[in-house]
Amino acid sequence: KELSLAPNVVTFDRAKMEDLLKRRFFYDQSFAIYGGITGQYDFGPMGCAFKSNLLQIWRQHFVMEEQMLEVDASILTPEPVLKASGHVDRFADLMVKDVNTGECFRLDHLIKAHLELLCANQKTSAELKAECEDIVVKLDGMSKDEMAGILKKFNMRSPLTGNELTEPIEFNLMFSTQIGPSGLIKGYLRPETAQGIFVNFKRLLEFNQGKLPFAAAQIGNAFRNEISPRSGLIRVREFTMAEIEHFVDPLDKRHPKFYSVRDIELILYSACNQMDGKPAEKKTIGTAVDEGLVANSTLGYFMARIQTFLIKCGVDATRLRFRQHMNNEMAHYACDCWDAECLTSYGWIECVGCADRSAYDLTQHTEATGVKLTAERRLATPKEVSVAEAVPNKGKIGKTFKKEAAFITKALENLKLEKLDDLEGKLSTEGKYVLHTGDKEYTLEKDMIEVKRYQQIKHVEEFIPSVVEPSFGIGRIMYSIFEHNFKMRENDEQRTYLSLPALVAPLKCSVLPLSRNDEFQPFIKTISSSFMKVDVSHKVDDSSGSIGRRYARTDEISIPYGVTIDFDTLKEPHSVTLRERDSMNQVRIPVHEIATVVHNLSYNKDTWKNIEEKYPKFEQQDAKA
Amino acid sequence: KELSLAPNVVTFDRAKMEDLLKRRFFYDQSFAIYGGITGQYDFGPMGCAFKSNLLQIWRQHFVMEEQMLEVDASILTPEPVLKASGHVDRFADLMVKDVNTGECFRLDHLIKAHLELLCANQKTSAELKAECEDIVVKLDGMSKDEMAGILKKFNMRSPLTGNELTEPIEFNLMFSTQIGPSGLIKGYLRPETAQGIFVNFKRLLEFNQGKLPFAAAQIGNAFRNEISPRSGLIRVREFTMAEIEHFVDPLDKRHPKFYSVRDIELILYSACNQMDGKPAEKKTIGTAVDEGLVANSTLGYFMARIQTFLIKCGVDATRLRFRQHMNNEMAHYACDCWDAECLTSYGWIECVGCADRSAYDLTQHTEATGVKLTAERRLATPKEVSVAEAVPNKGKIGKTFKKEAAFITKALENLKLEKLDDLEGKLSTEGKYVLHTGDKEYTLEKDMIEVKRYQQIKHVEEFIPSVVEPSFGIGRIMYSIFEHNFKMRENDEQRTYLSLPALVAPLKCSVLPLSRNDEFQPFIKTISSSFMKVDVSHKVDDSSGSIGRRYARTDEISIPYGVTIDFDTLKEPHSVTLRERDSMNQVRIPVHEIATVVHNLSYNKDTWKNIEEKYPKFEQQDAKA
Repeated sequence: KELSLAPNVVTFDRAKMEDLLKRRFFYDQSFAIYGGITGQYDFGPMGCAFKSNLLQIWRQHFVMEEQMLEVDASILTPEPVLKASGHVDRFADLMVKDVNTGECFRLDHLIKAHLELLCANQKTSAELKAECEDIVVKLDGMSKDEMAGILKKFNMRSPLTGNELTEPIEFNLMFSTQIGPSGLIKGYLRPETAQGIFVNFKRLLEFNQGKLPFAAAQIGNAFRNEISPRSGLIRVREFTMAEIEHFVDPLDKRHPKFYSVRDIELILYSACNQMDGKPAEKKTIGTAVDEGLVANSTLGYFMARIQTFLIKCGVDATRLRFRQHMNNEMAHYACDCWDAECLTSYGWIECVGCADRSAYDLTQHTEATGVKLTAERRLATPKEVSVAEAVPNKGKIGKTFKKEAAFITKALENLKLEKLDDLEGKLSTEGKYVLHTGDKEYTLEKDMIEVKRYQQIKHVEEFIPSVVEPSFGIGRIMYSIFEHNFKMRENDEQRTYLSLPALVAPLKCSVLPLSRNDEFQPFIKTISSSFMKVDVSHKVDDSSGSIGRRYARTDEISIPYGVTIDFDTLKEPHSVTLRERDSMNQVRIPVHEIATVVHNLSYNKDTWKNIEEKYPKFEQQDAKA
Repeated sequence: KELSLAPNVVTFDRAKMEDLLKRRFFYDQSFAIYGGITGQYDFGPMGCAFKSNLLQIWRQHFVMEEQMLEVDASILTPEPVLKASGHVDRFADLMVKDVNTGECFRLDHLIKAHLELLCANQKTSAELKAECEDIVVKLDGMSKDEMAGILKKFNMRSPLTGNELTEPIEFNLMFSTQIGPSGLIKGYLRPETAQGIFVNFKRLLEFNQGKLPFAAAQIGNAFRNEISPRSGLIRVREFTMAEIEHFVDPLDKRHPKFYSVRDIELILYSACNQMDGKPAEKKTIGTAVDEGLVANSTLGYFMARIQTFLIKCGVDATRLRFRQHMNNEMAHYACDCWDAECLTSYGWIECVGCADRSAYDLTQHTEATGVKLTAERRLATPKEVSVAEAVPNKGKIGKTFKKEAAFITKALENLKLEKLDDLEGKLSTEGKYVLHTGDKEYTLEKDMIEVKRYQQIKHVEEFIPSVVEPSFGIGRIMYSIFEHNFKMRENDEQRTYLSLPALVAPLKCSVLPLSRNDEFQPFIKTISSSFMKVDVSHKVDDSSGSIGRRYARTDEISIPYGVTIDFDTLKEPHSVTLRERDSMNQVRIPVHEIATVVHNLSYNKDTWKNIEEKYPKFEQQDAKA
C-alpha cells in the first residue's frame, strides 16, 4: 500500500528540495559547464512549463478579468528615460571593497552578518546584543553616513580575508551598454518593466478612448547587477516580472469592484505594529480600508486579488502576509506600499509589491520631455478661467532661427503661466527675453512674440493620473511555491515530491502502461491523443520500472494525476485507473471518459472528492507496486 | 448595405497599413516621447495580444505536439560561451564611417543603394548596368576586400554629406556589458537563444533519460546592435525568437513522423536554381527529400511543419517560399539550410531559418569546457576496442602542484588518443612531458604518470549529436502577417482592416448593444460572462457611434466576430446577431448558444460556412448602418 501524506513538514530540508529541483531540472545555474555565473538561472522543461502556466494564470486572473491593456515594451532603454525616472541617480546599493583583493561586499548584508555573528557569540553582553539587534531592525532605512559609522564603530573587516575595507561606495545596479555603432548612445537594461508603460501612457489612454481608470500590464524580463547575489532564485541578476499600472484620478481612488473582495481576510503587518514590536493582525480588507490602514480601495482591491492569485497558484495561506512599508524604507514617490511576503527558509521574502506611486513617474516624464502625460476630468460645472499664451510671429522667428524655429515655437507653447508673466515683463522692460530650453538658449526680441490673455469656459480640467502598481517577482513566487509544496511521504524521507496545484503543474497527467505488451499500444495512443484534443499536457512513461517507482518519478515532477493501463484495460468495457498524487488514492474510470475527467480536474472544473464519489475505488495495483 | 470584400489587393499601400497599425497601437517606436530609438518597437495591447496568441500556437504546434523540452535560459551571457560559439570573433557586419561626421553606414546596404541608383540612371550604359546587377546578386557572399574594392572602384561617398568614407570596419553586433560590481566579467546580451540550449545539453539529455532524438525549444528575446536599422519590424535591435534544437544521431537523420507530411507541397527555391537564374519550383517535400534536394527527412519534416504553422497563423501561401542557402552564404557550420521567406513590400524576407547545424556547437562547447556533450549509441554487435588512459600518481602530483593538482588530473582524463601517444613517447625518451591546458602549462615528470593500455568490450559508442535548427523571427512573421492581411473594403479606400485568422486575432469577439437603454445591460453582462467562461476574449463597445462605425472600428483591430444586441434581443426567445468580419454576413443566434458558437469558431472547431447554414441569415441592421 502506498504511504499516506505526511503531516505539515516542520523541519524543512532545503538541501533535499534543491537536490530534487536540480536533479529533475526545474532550474539550475546558468552556464554551469563554464563554471557558472552567480545570480543567473536557467529553467529546464519542468520549471519552464510551471513558469509558463503561472504566467498564463496571471494573464487570466488580472489582464483578462479586468480587461487590462497588455503591452510588450523594449528592454534596452536610453539613458534620458531612466534619468527622468530617478534610476540613473538613485538606483544604487552601497558596497565596500576589500582594499587588497578588490572583492566587493554589499554593505547592508555585511553589517547584518557581522552583527548577527556578534549576537550569536556567548561572550557578547546583553547590552551590546540589544544594540546590534536594534541596528539590524533599522538597517533598511539607514543613510550612507550612518552605515559608514557602524562600519567604523565595530571595526568591520572583510569576512573572507580579514583585510580592511574601503569607505562605502554607491554602486548603480543597472547594466549599461551602448546602442548603435557610434558608441555615443548610452543605454541600460531596464531595471523594472514599469517605465515601458509610463512612456506609452498617451497611446494607452487614447486606446482607452481617453477614459480613466484603466490598467496596463506587462510581463517581461528586468535586470539588476546585484553586488553579490546569493539565496538562489530569491536574489538574481536577471528575472521575469509581471507589473500592472492602474491609472486613476487622484481625487477619487475608489475601485468600482471593491465590494466583491471586501470580505477577504488578509494577514496585515502594519508599519505601526512593526515599530511598536506588535505582531501582524488578520482582518478583512474591507475593515482595513474603512479604518484608513490601507490608503484607498484600489490598493485594497489589488491586495485581495494578489492574495487570491498567490493561493490559487500554490502559496500556503498561513505563510503569506502583507507588510506595510515604514516611512523610512518607502520609495520617495510612494504614498502607501504593502508587500506580499512569503515565509520561506530564507525568512519572509517580498514576492509582490503593491504601491501607490502617486503621480510621480508621469510627472517626471512630462517634465523631461515636455509631452503632457495627462488625462481630462469633466467638471461638474463649467468654469471660466484666465488663459495666457505666447503667440509667436512665425515669419520673424523663422527668418532669425531657421531650422530651430519649430523647436522654439514648441518650447513657447509649453511655457507655464509664471514664465509667461516673466516673458511679458522682460519684453516690455528690456525689449528682449532669453528662452532656456534643454541645454540651449535663444534671445527673443519684442517683435517676435506677443502674449495674449483671455477668458475661456472650461468643461474639463487636465490632471496627471495617480498610479497604483502591483509588481510581481515571478522567480520569487515560484521559489516560495516550491518551498510551500515540497513534501515527503510519511515514513520515507527519500520519497520527496512536489504537491503543486494541478493548475500550475508542469504536466497534468502521466500515462503508465503496466506492460510493454503490444496489446497495450492502441490504448496508449487513444488516451494520449484524447488528452491532446482537450489540452491535457501529459507524459507517457513506458519504461520497465515498477509501477511504484514510476509513480515516484512522476510525483517528483509534480504530475497530479496518473492513468495506469493494466490488464483489465484490455477487457470490455475498457477502463483504466486514475491516481491522485497527494492522497495516492485511485479510482477506475472508463477509457472514453478519462480525458474529460482529467481535463476538468486539471483546470479546477471538478474536484478529486467528487471523482472519488462518482467512480469505484481501486486498490489492487498498490499491492503490486 | 455593408460593402463586400475587395479582390486581392494588388497595389499595396504600406503607409496606409502603418497608419492603421500605429493609430490602433499594434506597435510603435519605443520611447517616442524621448525622440525614439531606431530599431526598437513597443507592442501595444493589440500587438501584444496577437504576439501572445502566435506564441501560444507555436507552443501547441511544436512543443506540445512533439513533446519538446522547453527551456528558459539567461539572456546575459559571459564572454567565453560566445567565444566558443564563434560570435565574439565572427558575428560582425562591415561598416564604413563618414570621415568628417562619423556617421556609420552598413557597407552592403550602402553599396546596394549606390548601385541601384546607378542602374536607375538613364545615362548608365547597358554594360555598366549588367555589372552593377551582377555585384548586387553576389554581394551576400563577398569578402571584406572585395567590398572595399567595389567601394573604391565606384568612388562611393556618404549618401548624406558627400564626404569621403573610411575603409570597411568589422563591427561586432553584440551588445556588451559587465556582470558584477568589479567590472571584470565581460558579458553580452545573447544574439540568439540557441546557445542557452546547447550549454544545457547534458541536463536535457539526462532529462530525456539518455535517449535520442529529442528536441529542445526556447522562446525568448535576443539582441543585435544593428548598424543602421530601418525597415520597421524587419530589422530591429531587440526581438523575440522561438528556436528549436532537434538533436539527432548523425548516422541516421530520418524523422519517424516524416510519412505524415510527405505529400505537403512547398515552393522550393534551390541553390542551383538561384545560380542558374531559374525560378522556384513547387514540389512535395517527399519528392524533395527523395531527390536529395533537401538533405534529410528531419530537415524536410520541419520545413513542412513550419509551412503549416505559418499558414495557420495567417501567412498567405502564395507569398511563401523556401530558399536554400548558397554555399557562399551558408554559415561555416551548416550542411544545409532553407529559409522560409515571405513576400512583402520590402521584397522576400527571411522569417524562419531551418538549418542542419551538424555537430558544430556541441563540439565547440566540448572543446572549450572539457565537458563531453555527447550521447551514446548502442552497437549492433559489441566490439573490442583498445583503450588508453593516463593514470596520474595523485600523491606526487598533489605534492608538486598543490591546488592545481585537481585541474591537471582533469586535463589528463580528457587527453585524446594522439596526445596520449605523444605523452608516452616524451616520458620514455625525455623523462618529462609539458601539458598545455587553457593558457597554462605544467611540466610532468616520469614518476607522476603512467599510460595504461588495455582491451575493452564496448556495447555503446559515444558521439556528438547533430542538430537541426528551425529558428523563428517572431517580429518578422508578425509583420508579414500584417501585410498579407491588410485589406480595404471595396469602393472605400478609407475603410481599411486586418483579416487576421481568428486563432491569432487579438480579440475574438465584440459585443455591441444597439442602444444604451437600461434594458440592454443584463444582456451585455450575460453574454460577457458567458464568453469569459469559455475563454473568448472580447470587447464591449457601448459607445454612441452608429453600428456601422463601430463595426469599422472593430474591423481595424481585426476582431473576427461581432455580436449585436438589438431590440429583438429583448423579446423571447432572446437572440442576437453574429457578424463575420471578412464576409460581413450576419446570422441570428439564440443568446444561450452564442458563447459556444463563437468559441468553436475562434479555435477552429467550427466554420463560418457551417454556422451560416445552421442559423437564419440576418440582413436588417445593415440598412440602419
